[in-house]
Amino acid sequence: MPVSPLAPQSYPKLQPMAGVRLATASCAVRYADRTDLLVVELAEGTNVAGVLTRSLTASASVLACIDALKGGKARGLVVNSGNSNAFTGKAGIASVDRIREAAGKLFNCGIDSIYTSSTGVIGEKLPDEKITAALPSLKFSEDAWDEAARAIMTTDTYPKLATQTAIIEGVKVTINGIAKGSGMIAPDMATMLAYVFTDADIPAAILQKMLSESNETTFNSITVDGDTSTSDTLLVFATGKAGNKADDNSDYSDFKKALQAVLHDLALQIVRDGEGAGKLVTITVSGAESKKAAKNIGMSIANSPLVKTAIAASDANWGRIVAAVGKAGERADRDKLCISIGGVSVARNGEADPNYNESQITLHMQGREIVINVNVGVGSESATVYTCDLTHRYIDINGSYRS
Amino acid sequence: MPVSPLAPQSYPKLQPMAGVRLATASCAVRYADRTDLLVVELAEGTNVAGVLTRSLTASASVLACIDALKGGKARGLVVNSGNSNAFTGKAGIASVDRIREAAGKLFNCGIDSIYTSSTGVIGEKLPDEKITAALPSLKFSEDAWDEAARAIMTTDTYPKLATQTAIIEGVKVTINGIAKGSGMIAPDMATMLAYVFTDADIPAAILQKMLSESNETTFNSITVDGDTSTSDTLLVFATGKAGNKADDNSDYSDFKKALQAVLHDLALQIVRDGEGAGKLVTITVSGAESKKAAKNIGMSIANSPLVKTAIAASDANWGRIVAAVGKAGERADRDKLCISIGGVSVARNGEADPNYNESQITLHMQGREIVINVNVGVGSESATVYTCDLTHRYIDINGSYRS
Repeated sequence: MPVSPLAPQSYPKLQPMAGVRLATASCAVRYADRTDLLVVELAEGTNVAGVLTRSLTASASVLACIDALKGGKARGLVVNSGNSNAFTGKAGIASVDRIREAAGKLFNCGIDSIYTSSTGVIGEKLPDEKITAALPSLKFSEDAWDEAARAIMTTDTYPKLATQTAIIEGVKVTINGIAKGSGMIAPDMATMLAYVFTDADIPAAILQKMLSESNETTFNSITVDGDTSTSDTLLVFATGKAGNKADDNSDYSDFKKALQAVLHDLALQIVRDGEGAGKLVTITVSGAESKKAAKNIGMSIANSPLVKTAIAASDANWGRIVAAVGKAGERADRDKLCISIGGVSVARNGEADPNYNESQITLHMQGREIVINVNVGVGSESATVYTCDLTHRYIDINGSYRS
Repeated sequence: MPVSPLAPQSYPKLQPMAGVRLATASCAVRYADRTDLLVVELAEGTNVAGVLTRSLTASASVLACIDALKGGKARGLVVNSGNSNAFTGKAGIASVDRIREAAGKLFNCGIDSIYTSSTGVIGEKLPDEKITAALPSLKFSEDAWDEAARAIMTTDTYPKLATQTAIIEGVKVTINGIAKGSGMIAPDMATMLAYVFTDADIPAAILQKMLSESNETTFNSITVDGDTSTSDTLLVFATGKAGNKADDNSDYSDFKKALQAVLHDLALQIVRDGEGAGKLVTITVSGAESKKAAKNIGMSIANSPLVKTAIAASDANWGRIVAAVGKAGERADRDKLCISIGGVSVARNGEADPNYNESQITLHMQGREIVINVNVGVGSESATVYTCDLTHRYIDINGSYRS
């Protein structure tokens, strides 16, 4: 599997973080000759926040995470790749229970502080005994960020890492994040997993609020194929070891900016590794009556197979953008609609721009990063969403037989 | 362009219908060496009903039809292929006005009785003078149904025709329908147009009610790529020449059944000619809390690129169906969910069916017609939707440059 042409030129080197120790292992859950298990030990007192898939067929791990988040505390994280343990009924719940019990024993804590994720094929029983058997002999390290990002990959073509620092009330804190998502050869869903770690001390409720807000404009604003996974998971762990004093009234604005930057970075890395992706597409919808309407219109464009195939062919076929705006079901004024591609106006006030000449954007359309701006002419709200093009490789990747 | 492998083995021969005269012409709106104009003369007193796209960027013709339908009367229909006259602003409206005026002159009626449609590329000015210039020299015939169906094709690979008879209060009436849709090489949208003609005398309001109801389970239950067109148009014309006496209290139940059959037939012909289609997929969702919920879940499955690419590869990857049910946003009981493919149970009560062996459905998956049944376990309502698979040909067709 060749690395995506949109992959970052280099990956950041994540620094060790007080309160976070990482271990990986090869358990052969499904894949041979690679790591497929990530276990993270978190310092006692670590606060946690999370957002999980809203899929009504969510996996057993997702449901367990939602439950554990009520307590707001974390001591351990166990993630396997190769099998999503989704749609596995009572057996799937029992698997998660056994993994949490074994990890609780390892870290000497209750299962309420253990978070698990599984990613891979849907509907097959998870061989959890392979995972629990590996736990006692794991070698933890503060430095294994790259290994951690690689262990959770399914058919991602590169590991996804991001880091930022921030100041909270005069104390420097760090945020490290890893994610996987979007490239799968045979198995199943374009599953998204992301884990963010910080040494800051932040109350769980405040962390959760910041996470939910930032998630909306980052992970919740990307799409590869419009197919929501059964396992999407985004967790943020705050170990509190940086030395800032947690306080509901502290100024977290710099931290929030850094958190947003890490989430945005990881989310874009996932789109850049979208199945078969050849181009990164940034779509900004303005002039909408609400942020939600702007995002819905943006997603209608971003998920349109006709728009995505045209972009793959470097065709500035903006008529398909018009149609995608029309089908979104949100208010738009057809006679005020304006569209620009690569900064060049192609349509304005409901008609082709009379000054537009297709040769003006030929180079832009042939590039790796396509920028589309749409003004729908009914309000002042806007939103930006990110997607990739739809290519033959998407069909190859998802149309190859599982076995 | 080879004919779709799902094309019907033979096309019905539509009989002449009292009150309907057809003419076609080659105007070179966009295509050379083929007909691209259909004009239909309807007897005085013809009633009409219609459903049009709900797209907010609907074309000028669509808006004019919506307006004309308020009167419920029709004398003429003018349809061109090659240019959709959508997103053409005031110039587009003026084009429609000029065509309606010229046709009104031809048929000696007001423009309120003239219906127009345009299908093809979006955002280019319609050269309406080519159409109006052709009107005076048209040769009308009662027998040109096949020619009519061909003139409105864009890159459909075969013409679409259907016919039925029905009895209203002891009088035999006929319903003839033609449609186009779904195959386009370069232009733009998968545009759907359908015109149905009957010699029955039926008040416009009753005709409209029957049409709206039948449309919901036929044309509104098919999808090729989830992209709603700017030009979708379905019109039914009733000339009243069969001899039945129109009455609000007449028994139209047999007619309604026949109308439903014609619409269903034409809708399925469109799916069978879906861009790049290799398999026809029928998805029935039952056990839902409402018909609307069942249809939304069905459409979530039918529009999932992951489900559609798996089907193209003859892969019974039902985990993707589970995920598509989950993302639909409608109530479903994960632990009661049952899925069968080709009549074979693959999953039941939220888990893989223990008796299921993939070899049982290999032949079915390799066939041309795939049948999927999903029970979501929360109610007693159901709905059926139709789609096709997602193949490399879809990318080829929509990724080739327009010019």
